[in-house]
Amino acid sequence: MNETPLARLEAGLTAQGLDAALITDPKHIYYLTGFASNPHERFLGLILTPGQEPLLIVPALDADDAAAASSVKNIATHSDTDNPYSLLHRYQGQLKKMGLEKDYVTVSRYEQLTAALGSVEFADIGSLLRSLRVKKTPKEVVRIRRAIALIEEVLTQGLSHVRAGVTEIELVAEMEYRMKKLGADGPSFDTMVLSGPKTGLPHGTPGDRKLQHGDLLMFDMGVYAEGYASDITRTFAFGAVSPELKKMYDTVLEANLAAIRAAKPGLPCADVDRAARAVIEAAGYGERFVHRVGHGLGLDIHEYPSLHAQNQDPLQEGCVFTIEPGIYIAGAGGVRIEDDVIVTSNGVEVLTSYPKELIILG
Amino acid sequence: MNETPLARLEAGLTAQGLDAALITDPKHIYYLTGFASNPHERFLGLILTPGQEPLLIVPALDADDAAAASSVKNIATHSDTDNPYSLLHRYQGQLKKMGLEKDYVTVSRYEQLTAALGSVEFADIGSLLRSLRVKKTPKEVVRIRRAIALIEEVLTQGLSHVRAGVTEIELVAEMEYRMKKLGADGPSFDTMVLSGPKTGLPHGTPGDRKLQHGDLLMFDMGVYAEGYASDITRTFAFGAVSPELKKMYDTVLEANLAAIRAAKPGLPCADVDRAARAVIEAAGYGERFVHRVGHGLGLDIHEYPSLHAQNQDPLQEGCVFTIEPGIYIAGAGGVRIEDDVIVTSNGVEVLTSYPKELIILG
Repeated sequence: MNETPLARLEAGLTAQGLDAALITDPKHIYYLTGFASNPHERFLGLILTPGQEPLLIVPALDADDAAAASSVKNIATHSDTDNPYSLLHRYQGQLKKMGLEKDYVTVSRYEQLTAALGSVEFADIGSLLRSLRVKKTPKEVVRIRRAIALIEEVLTQGLSHVRAGVTEIELVAEMEYRMKKLGADGPSFDTMVLSGPKTGLPHGTPGDRKLQHGDLLMFDMGVYAEGYASDITRTFAFGAVSPELKKMYDTVLEANLAAIRAAKPGLPCADVDRAARAVIEAAGYGERFVHRVGHGLGLDIHEYPSLHAQNQDPLQEGCVFTIEPGIYIAGAGGVRIEDDVIVTSNGVEVLTSYPKELIILG
Repeated sequence: MNETPLARLEAGLTAQGLDAALITDPKHIYYLTGFASNPHERFLGLILTPGQEPLLIVPALDADDAAAASSVKNIATHSDTDNPYSLLHRYQGQLKKMGLEKDYVTVSRYEQLTAALGSVEFADIGSLLRSLRVKKTPKEVVRIRRAIALIEEVLTQGLSHVRAGVTEIELVAEMEYRMKKLGADGPSFDTMVLSGPKTGLPHGTPGDRKLQHGDLLMFDMGVYAEGYASDITRTFAFGAVSPELKKMYDTVLEANLAAIRAAKPGLPCADVDRAARAVIEAAGYGERFVHRVGHGLGLDIHEYPSLHAQNQDPLQEGCVFTIEPGIYIAGAGGVRIEDDVIVTSNGVEVLTSYPKELIILG
C-alpha cells in the first residue's frame, strides 16, 4: 500500500482494458494530484495514458496554484478565450478506449469530448474510482482526524448555549458559527439539532421548538476540513429523562459498542449492521432501528461502502466509516450515537473521542 | 406576461421544433411547477409534450410534498427498488426530438434515457430555459425581495461586532450565524469580508487579518431564501480613512448611481457597464475597475444576463440584476458598492435599500 492513488488508478485502467482516462471531477483531481480547486464552469481535467506522463489541464488563472500543489507537473493551461478541448487534439487517433466519470460528466461536455477526440469509445470508471477511495492514505487519515477534532471542539463549545427555551435552529446557528471560527471549510451536511419528541424523527428538520426539561437533545453534524468530512451524532438529556428514554439510550450505546467490537477486515458490511441490530432487537426495539448502521466517509460525507443488511462486501483495512445505530419512537423521542472508525489490521480504531455515556445537561 | 413559466416553455419547445422535453434540474422543476426538492441521486423529472398533460416523476418518499406543492398534478412515483426509467416507456416510439438540459444531465443518465426511449433525437434546451428565466414572475420578485431584506438585516445586526482587532473570518462567522438565525436557507455564496489593503484584491479570501483604524472594510454577501438569491456589497470606513480612499469611494458611488440612472428596457447590457465605467475612467481609475458591472440574479446567484462591455443583448422588463462597480488598488485598498435592481417599464427599481453614503464605523 505504498502506491499512490494515481499509480493504483493506472493499474486499474490497464486491468479494465482502457488505454486512457480523463478525470474531471475536482474531488478526484484533488485525490489523485493533491491540487484542490473549484474551476466553476471552466475546464479542469487530468489525462492518464498508462506508461506515459499524465497531463493536467487547468484554467490559466489557476496555473500557479496547480504548479505548487499538484504532484503531476506536466500542466497545460487555457484562458477564457481558448477552446480547452483543443488541448486534447494531441491524443486524437491514438486512443481506443477511454475511461470517464459517467456519473459526473455532462452531455454537453461529452459532446465536446467526442468532437475533440474523434472515434474513441468511452467506458465508465466511476466504480473503479470508488473502489480506490475505500482504502485511505496516511495523508487522508490525517485530514479526517482533523475534521473530527474540529467537529468535537464545535460540539464542546456549542453546548455552552444549551438552556431552557433555546430553539433547535438557534443551536444550529451556534454550531455552524463555531465551525467557521475554528477554521473548518464548512458543514459537511445540514447540521441537525432536534429536541424532545422530534428526536423520534430520523429525518427531522431543526425548527423553532424550544428546549424543555426532560427532553432528549440530539446533534448530528460534521465539517469539511481540507476537503475531508467528519460526521458525529451525540444525544444528551436536558435534565432528568424518563426511564423509557434512558433504556433506549443504553440500548443504542450497547449496539454502538457491539458493532465496534465486531468490525474487522474481511467481515461483510452486513455483519456490522447485524451486530448492532441484534442488540436493539433483543431489547425489543428492532422495528425502531429504521436505517443502515453506517456509511463510508472521506472526500464525500456518504461514500462507498454502505453498511446495510444486504451488503456482503468485506471490510478492507484502511476503510473509514460511521457506526450510528438509533432507535426512534415518533411522539416520544429517539436516540442515535454515531462514531467514525477506521479499519485496522485486526479490528477498528474509533476516531471520534467525545464521551458516549448519557450526559445530563442543564 | 400572464403566462406561466410552464406555458412559456411549451411555446418555446414548439418554436424550436421539439415535440417533448425532459427537465431534471430540481431548480427548473421548482421554477416550472412550484415543487422544491433535493432528490439526491434519485430520479426526478418533468416531461412536457406540448398539447398533452405534463407528467412529474418523483421518488415515492416525496409524493406527498409534490402533490401539495406542484402545479402539475399528473404525478408518477417510483420506489428505490423500481427502475424510474420504465415510467418513460409510455413515450417510446412517440417522440422524435426531445429537449434536454445538456449542461445538467450526466452521461450515465443520458445512456439510461436513450435505452428507455429508443431512437429519440435529443436537443439542448439550456439556453431556452435561461431566456425564460430572465423575466421574473411576481412570485419570484417577492422571494428575491425577501432574500434581500434578510441579507440587509444580517448586515445591520452583524455590524455590531465590528471593533478594532476583530478578524475577517470572525466577521464572516458572525454574518453567516445571523443568516441562519433570521431564517435564510443559507449563504448564496462564500461570504466575503475583507479589510485594509486586502480590499484591494477583487477576489481576496477572508483570513486572520485584524481590523485597524483607518481601514476600509468590505462586505460582499447574500442569502438564498425559498430558493432565490440576494447579493449585496457595502464598503465602510473604520475610523477616518485617507483622502485617496475617500475619493475612490465617492467615485464608485457615483458610478453605481450613473449605472442605475442609465438602465432601462431595451438598453444593451454593455451600456450599463459603460455608464459606470465612464465615471470611473473620468476619475482616472479606469484600469482599476477590473470586472463587469453586474450579473443576473434569481434562482442562481450568477445567471443570464452578464452585464459586460461586449454584451449587446437588450435589457428586458422584469429582469433582476446586480450593479456593482469597484476600484481596486493592490496594497492600498478597494471599494465596491453593489445593489440589486429590477427592470421596470421605463428604468430600474433598486431593490436593495441599505444606505450607500460612506459610513464611518468605530
